[in-house]
Amino acid sequence: MTQQTLNVDLGDRSYPIFVGKDLFLSSMLAPYIRGNQVLIVSNSTVAPLYMDALRAALPDIQIDEVILPDGEEYKNLTYLNAVYDELLTKKHNRTTTLIALGGGVVGDMTGYAAASYQRGVNFIQVPTTLLSQVDSSVGGKTGVNHPLGKNMIGAFHQPQVVLASVDALETLPDRELSAGLAEVVKYGFIYDEAFLCWLEENMADLVARDSGKLSQAIYRSCEIKAEVVAQDEREGGIRAILNLGHTFGHAIEANQGYGNWLHGEAVAAGTMMAADLSCRLGWLTRDDVKRVESVLLAANLPVRPPQDMSAADFIELMSVDKKVLDGQLRLVLLKGLGEAVVTEEFSADLLQETLTADSYC
Amino acid sequence: MTQQTLNVDLGDRSYPIFVGKDLFLSSMLAPYIRGNQVLIVSNSTVAPLYMDALRAALPDIQIDEVILPDGEEYKNLTYLNAVYDELLTKKHNRTTTLIALGGGVVGDMTGYAAASYQRGVNFIQVPTTLLSQVDSSVGGKTGVNHPLGKNMIGAFHQPQVVLASVDALETLPDRELSAGLAEVVKYGFIYDEAFLCWLEENMADLVARDSGKLSQAIYRSCEIKAEVVAQDEREGGIRAILNLGHTFGHAIEANQGYGNWLHGEAVAAGTMMAADLSCRLGWLTRDDVKRVESVLLAANLPVRPPQDMSAADFIELMSVDKKVLDGQLRLVLLKGLGEAVVTEEFSADLLQETLTADSYC
Repeated sequence: MTQQTLNVDLGDRSYPIFVGKDLFLSSMLAPYIRGNQVLIVSNSTVAPLYMDALRAALPDIQIDEVILPDGEEYKNLTYLNAVYDELLTKKHNRTTTLIALGGGVVGDMTGYAAASYQRGVNFIQVPTTLLSQVDSSVGGKTGVNHPLGKNMIGAFHQPQVVLASVDALETLPDRELSAGLAEVVKYGFIYDEAFLCWLEENMADLVARDSGKLSQAIYRSCEIKAEVVAQDEREGGIRAILNLGHTFGHAIEANQGYGNWLHGEAVAAGTMMAADLSCRLGWLTRDDVKRVESVLLAANLPVRPPQDMSAADFIELMSVDKKVLDGQLRLVLLKGLGEAVVTEEFSADLLQETLTADSYC
Repeated sequence: MTQQTLNVDLGDRSYPIFVGKDLFLSSMLAPYIRGNQVLIVSNSTVAPLYMDALRAALPDIQIDEVILPDGEEYKNLTYLNAVYDELLTKKHNRTTTLIALGGGVVGDMTGYAAASYQRGVNFIQVPTTLLSQVDSSVGGKTGVNHPLGKNMIGAFHQPQVVLASVDALETLPDRELSAGLAEVVKYGFIYDEAFLCWLEENMADLVARDSGKLSQAIYRSCEIKAEVVAQDEREGGIRAILNLGHTFGHAIEANQGYGNWLHGEAVAAGTMMAADLSCRLGWLTRDDVKRVESVLLAANLPVRPPQDMSAADFIELMSVDKKVLDGQLRLVLLKGLGEAVVTEEFSADLLQETLTADSYC
């Protein structure tokens, strides 16, 4: 097996995800380019590694580039404007295709540039981190951060195709591989206990970058996300379960400064907090919480929030989170391993216990 | 008759437009507000005139305001960011409703802020200029300008409801009333010769601000636009006929500096150029061109492009226009009065004749 194809079923916005090795081939990309202009957006870390291979896989048309500095702190309106500048300076028209070559930051910004340039142009994702392969590949969420909140400006915009190449993971730093695994195990926690068992058994191989097993994990993660998103494209309901650990996690990222804790690391610690609160509600057993902790530890992820963050810090930062509806904090919690709910059915006291606990439930 | 209702039929994005007098009533707005937060965006000219009346028509919920400076030159990412700042500082959540109180600039920016804030929130239009009542009320186009092009950043985002109050036109400067009439007569030119005849007969009353006749003109204009948009929501085809005069017009606005020529004035001169080229193609008679010119003159509109603009200026500026597909310039031209086509079937020589003509065909 060098490649698997997953079709994301969204009616007239359906598209394929290719997962596997040796994907930087012309036959993979050319069929998805409509006009005769392409803008590749990448960052200063990824471009030197994969830009040449990507360009070689494109037809002989106008190809322009924007290379952003690498980091979440550049995912903002200022750098988004650099993309618009290039598009307009090089006279890209409505049939242009934007290609995101990089991780989640590049994908989110490029997707949002594609959503908003001339009110919407085509978009291809070439995610080069595990996190972006299992998260941004499906769902169409695009956007940038605002100084007062993460992902506060954005749009839903689906790509024409996604190339999730495991070859690109060979150059990924260990810490980022682990951050990606936080989202992979999340799919097990919220939706599929069998997948969780498979991850528990194969975590050592995944950490060792076994490309076959990574492909399997990416494929199943995208498949689960696609099933959830297909039921709720605009995030009115069930889709919110994908945010397990994210409300706590966003608070951690905002408090620590974006980039100091990687997104996946913050989500891992947040997932532990969600598991802890679920246990205090009587929904998870202590053994369940131990399993959550063990698999996160096996993926080399943090399982405790930052020591310098108080309960008051969490409450303040979580109140601006998008999951707050009409002032009422909703959280994604676990009814069991493999089953998540979005709920406000927890007392402030129990939440306070989770936020101040010295050890888990 | 104090009020007529037009339903814009876009499936699950359908919404009503109320046209008439005395629309600033709670019964008109309250049913369309979902959450308990509202942000009103207006400008420094309109807010002193109508903000109090609008606030009085809203339920007793959190109401915040952003007052922008008045003018097309502020329709940019910087002022858009001022709207995001207010939304985030005041902790508006996903159920908030943005209300645009003003003309096209306020409507376009507020609509785009609503499209992009937290990936999309509710939006209500209260257009206070004739141009915005007959143009921005229907179609869902939102966006901001970029230094290198008008409306280059934006989204399609439909409002929950539009209140087109003719009362608000009492305070509109004469020049802006005329600019709005340029878009009204456009609907006759492209779609409905009978409406064009009605406008020819009633132009003096419209210029004199007869509120009954203005209501009729607004209603029929929105109705025509809604019929066209319903056939082509995302502007793949027929919808482009709404841009009669706009490719030439945008070039005039860009060349003269936004705001020096009002949008409607530039469209009027552009419409004459489109009529002239249509005549040179043998599609319009010279009498048809005279009728176009007469009704525009009766509305106190310019019928010639700026004297200091050369043919080369037009060609350069039109090549970046959104109507250019794959490098080929497409124009909206008239096959007859009441019938428009989007076409590239004109020779460069004929276009050059139109751009350099001392008098019309």
